Amino acid sequence: MKYFLILLFVTFVSNAQITTEQLNLMPWPQNIKLTAGTFALSKKFKVNITGNPNARIFIGATNFVRRLDGRTGLFLEQSFLTKVNERPEAELQINCVRNGKIEINEDESYQLIITSNKITINATSDLGALHGLETLLQLLQNNSTAYYFPVVEISDSPRFTWRGLMIDAARHFQPVDVIKRNLDAMASMKMNVFHWHLADDQGWRIELKNHPKLTELASDGNFYTQEEIKNIVKYADERGILVIPEIDVPGHASALLNAYPEIGSKVGEGKITYEVQRNSGIFNATLDPTNPKTYEVLSSIFDEVCPLFPGSYFHIGGDENNGKEWNANPAIQQFKKDNNFVNNHDLQTYFNMKLIPILKKYNKKLMGWEEIMTENMSKDAIIHAWRGTNEGQEAGGALIKAAKSGYNTVLSNGYYIDLMLSLESHYLNDPLPKKIILSPEEKARVLGGEAAMWSELVTTLNIDSRIWPRTAAIAERLWSDESVTDMNSLRKRLKTISFRLEELGITHIRNKEVILRNISNNQDTRALNDFSNLCEPLKNYKRNGGGKKYRMHSPLTLFADACNTDASEALDFNVAVNAYLSDKSKENKGVVTDFFKKWITLNSDLIALSSNAPLVQPLLPLSKSLSDLSEQLLLLIEKKQKVSQTVLEDLLEKCNTRSPADVELAVYGSLKKLL
Amino acid sequence: MKYFLILLFVTFVSNAQITTEQLNLMPWPQNIKLTAGTFALSKKFKVNITGNPNARIFIGATNFVRRLDGRTGLFLEQSFLTKVNERPEAELQINCVRNGKIEINEDESYQLIITSNKITINATSDLGALHGLETLLQLLQNNSTAYYFPVVEISDSPRFTWRGLMIDAARHFQPVDVIKRNLDAMASMKMNVFHWHLADDQGWRIELKNHPKLTELASDGNFYTQEEIKNIVKYADERGILVIPEIDVPGHASALLNAYPEIGSKVGEGKITYEVQRNSGIFNATLDPTNPKTYEVLSSIFDEVCPLFPGSYFHIGGDENNGKEWNANPAIQQFKKDNNFVNNHDLQTYFNMKLIPILKKYNKKLMGWEEIMTENMSKDAIIHAWRGTNEGQEAGGALIKAAKSGYNTVLSNGYYIDLMLSLESHYLNDPLPKKIILSPEEKARVLGGEAAMWSELVTTLNIDSRIWPRTAAIAERLWSDESVTDMNSLRKRLKTISFRLEELGITHIRNKEVILRNISNNQDTRALNDFSNLCEPLKNYKRNGGGKKYRMHSPLTLFADACNTDASEALDFNVAVNAYLSDKSKENKGVVTDFFKKWITLNSDLIALSSNAPLVQPLLPLSKSLSDLSEQLLLLIEKKQKVSQTVLEDLLEKCNTRSPADVELAVYGSLKKLL
Repeated sequence: MKYFLILLFVTFVSNAQITTEQLNLMPWPQNIKLTAGTFALSKKFKVNITGNPNARIFIGATNFVRRLDGRTGLFLEQSFLTKVNERPEAELQINCVRNGKIEINEDESYQLIITSNKITINATSDLGALHGLETLLQLLQNNSTAYYFPVVEISDSPRFTWRGLMIDAARHFQPVDVIKRNLDAMASMKMNVFHWHLADDQGWRIELKNHPKLTELASDGNFYTQEEIKNIVKYADERGILVIPEIDVPGHASALLNAYPEIGSKVGEGKITYEVQRNSGIFNATLDPTNPKTYEVLSSIFDEVCPLFPGSYFHIGGDENNGKEWNANPAIQQFKKDNNFVNNHDLQTYFNMKLIPILKKYNKKLMGWEEIMTENMSKDAIIHAWRGTNEGQEAGGALIKAAKSGYNTVLSNGYYIDLMLSLESHYLNDPLPKKIILSPEEKARVLGGEAAMWSELVTTLNIDSRIWPRTAAIAERLWSDESVTDMNSLRKRLKTISFRLEELGITHIRNKEVILRNISNNQDTRALNDFSNLCEPLKNYKRNGGGKKYRMHSPLTLFADACNTDASEALDFNVAVNAYLSDKSKENKGVVTDFFKKWITLNSDLIALSSNAPLVQPLLPLSKSLSDLSEQLLLLIEKKQKVSQTVLEDLLEKCNTRSPADVELAVYGSLKKLL
Repeated sequence: MKYFLILLFVTFVSNAQITTEQLNLMPWPQNIKLTAGTFALSKKFKVNITGNPNARIFIGATNFVRRLDGRTGLFLEQSFLTKVNERPEAELQINCVRNGKIEINEDESYQLIITSNKITINATSDLGALHGLETLLQLLQNNSTAYYFPVVEISDSPRFTWRGLMIDAARHFQPVDVIKRNLDAMASMKMNVFHWHLADDQGWRIELKNHPKLTELASDGNFYTQEEIKNIVKYADERGILVIPEIDVPGHASALLNAYPEIGSKVGEGKITYEVQRNSGIFNATLDPTNPKTYEVLSSIFDEVCPLFPGSYFHIGGDENNGKEWNANPAIQQFKKDNNFVNNHDLQTYFNMKLIPILKKYNKKLMGWEEIMTENMSKDAIIHAWRGTNEGQEAGGALIKAAKSGYNTVLSNGYYIDLMLSLESHYLNDPLPKKIILSPEEKARVLGGEAAMWSELVTTLNIDSRIWPRTAAIAERLWSDESVTDMNSLRKRLKTISFRLEELGITHIRNKEVILRNISNNQDTRALNDFSNLCEPLKNYKRNGGGKKYRMHSPLTLFADACNTDASEALDFNVAVNAYLSDKSKENKGVVTDFFKKWITLNSDLIALSSNAPLVQPLLPLSKSLSDLSEQLLLLIEKKQKVSQTVLEDLLEKCNTRSPADVELAVYGSLKKLL
């Protein structure tokens, strides 16, 4: 009874006034007007929907109520929302002028007005209203006993119309629940395009009733049924997300050619066969563009695939065709001569152009990776820019070239989240860099961007931690104003955003513990966790050493899988080192040396742990190097003893070696500053 | 390089000899002969299959290799197993005499022989071989750097043929991935029956193409498509598990009658309607057994449901028909008179008997909850015993009565895991208690038992923590010899077994952290975690206060959802108290008083946490009571001060109050001993 009296009392306690900078909104809205005052949340809180919306806003609003209730434990009274204007007296009024279309360039704007006793979301389409609900959830505040919203007026709309995430379900199959929870997370970050990579050298992942061989022979039993595809497309639609399928041709075709070797380009004695690939990398398997049967097969495949996806785009891949099979095939070489094709690019253009009318039957526009942008390629195609310095190209160069050449275009270079690069590298990668001068028409052709989750090294266990939270930063880059670039603000907000993704089932935090528990052999994971906050997985595909170390069935339950980019303690250490180098005060020195002491203990703890945990062994060389260097630096900095510079440098370089655990010490750069 | 040398070296290190008691096997095998020596595991390790098995052993063996690899990180070379005798040289040879049938009373025995360089699994059917693989995985040992199996000979077979888990997907829908991961966990515990409760007052969860109204009107969009059902039945088959559907009739029928009110028993003015229920409890909605249309509808429902499930059993529920609608319906009363039915039981028997021929068309035997066991019920029916002292009945009395009356029967009384009772209560609940004398024929009718996971208070977030690890103890009860009853051994082994369930995707450990993080509002969860190890959710449905507190959409993200039975620190404290009471040595006293000191600090930590976490507030009254009592007990025990017995008893009783957080302090009993 006393408890309830306390609760009653506190609702009258005034809530602390918050500043705009304190709001943990992401992506950051275009306009925020915060004023004094709060809206107090109680179990009586209700939602009402007016206007002419699509059914999806009822699902969205019901989910909103459930999420709010799950967070607050208020036992909100409202259950399912089903009808327009069901609760005219409700505190939250959502008004949608019209049914939104799940397409590019739809109006996604919304206005959110919170007063002390009323909340209003106004939107042209229900898609904008869904965004408004996500913003409202992010605005939730609390004091010690109650929840409330700040009084605020927000008007918001996206900078780019294409804000996507690609998931590769071919290398490692990703079951329906993985896709669904990521769609939920995308929606929470106001992303609107899910690009689904459904076929590659390592597997064919979509059931085709007229081509059962494809999944029978080339999926290892791991594929989406058509019903599952429809179910996911509907689930995405309910969250305002357009789904774009990708069937990668003419290269990346080992799985397709495993079932249909007769349309491959390989020549040789006896029966030609293709194997589903178990390694990563670029393979030779390529469709034969000179064979009419190729187009028959593709046409009948597209006949089945296209109707499953109501959107206007179809991604045909088109990347990384190494041309080896074409070059080795005399008939194909003759065909090139007969048609005056100067090179394989011309031949691939010929192939691509043949696909356009097949897709047009279903009102689909062809989209492809940047390699499809050849001289004679139709301007109707959408160019997906992906290559950069890794591939010996100018970063995002294809995007600019495409926009200038009259193509609509989408950027993924700089958003390859499988490269395990830093948050900052993705966040500051603007699709329209200031130094590039484009005309308004050219700018308008840059539709936006897509985070790309290639799955060579991801399973259901670790995929979420590769996508999130970095993709939230990419989502902000694509939605918010170009001036929103403050890394400190991003990092601060991301702490809350990352935590809240758990509510949608995203497993990036929880599964880290699972992996560490396995490595520890069910012992205490604290030392492993501490060490993981100092380490980052090897970057730029170095972990997989040319695609040879990890096969598709190799274990991805290792220390590198528990580590992530932007190792948190490395960031903290860097701040401490910078402070110390600019002011060698006793306090600043103490902060730095405390790290060294911690790392020496950490090494002992890991050694102790390893006595019953073989999977800890590969971590010990790196942990020992860090401990050894820490000891020397303690002597130098704390005890003012002389330490040989050669010894220090030698130890430092040991901290910079590739570890058998496939990780690198993220503190290396900061340590180097101290020498 | 040094690292690899170390690795090379250690493989020559001899492995510690293990004792039988140290093995963490569950369920405990019938015969174990452990001898000196080990089988060293390397990345070259391969599996070969011989005999005449079903395809399922290839899937099982492939999964075995992947799990072993995920645990050890060895990069095992073998990928997919697809053919008989593919690897004659393999270290692990699996020989199955014949294709196993997914049915009751199939031969599930296996023999597992490990020598220092060879492992053999012999089984009559592949089902036994699958069990052998699970035992082998549980036998994995390690030293500091390597993995190995002990040299051992095991022969094993189940005590009971029916070892089931029921999941109620009606109250809270449980998506496909939840079911699949629980099937994996069941298989790891050698369980072989999945009983799927698909319809109840709160929802209809199975798509029927001839009755689309059922899911359109009575599922809130949450149901299994027929394709999903087939997919799950196949998944279960691959794991040696029989799936038994339950459509609960004639009571528990609100969802069914929401779509088909015309076959209900309710009378009244105007149009009769039924609502899908949002609360828990027993409701009046009951089918009309006198209406021929009732059997038409049921017959056509069964026509669709039966072919989806290849097994020989169909569960028709039959429980908790409160008879109110029948009593209030004059036509039904007249029908009873006309047919000389003495009571509603006779009428229900009439109803049940009408279902038998409908099911017989599909070679299905009728199974039902114990209420179906009436005088004239067919002896072909299987009686599912569930009631006990909670329902004013003798515990499991119906099981014995059924066996004596000539029915095959299955026990769930004592296995209701939603009651949140202790591990011990389930583990020591033998289907054939020693005190009951049954003839061999009668004993043979006791097929086994089923853990029952009713889902009023479980969602996808917390369901695994309600099922596991307690269901592993039930699995052992049903598989192992009746003499295997040592609680200390069970608890010791369960620590490893529970941890290993994570490998199969079971979320009981990881999701506890998720819930605590939400309660903490993304602050440090240590204090919450410590307190959760002292608390248990209210038992025997007390949490839901007559089914009124929690509706189906109420939040289940609360502290009680993070707590579990058998609170670990309460068990430790009890050991300490018992030691202290039998020997008041300084050391024993110190152990006890350390708990008190910890709990005083814990209370302060929770108060500090609550300043930014409203969901911590409901915990504070209980935590304060424990802290207050701890202070007094410290005075009494450590400082030898006089403390008023009244004050102590008063404080103790405050530790025994129902908390607003829906939990109770599991240390209450041990504290009481100290007073």
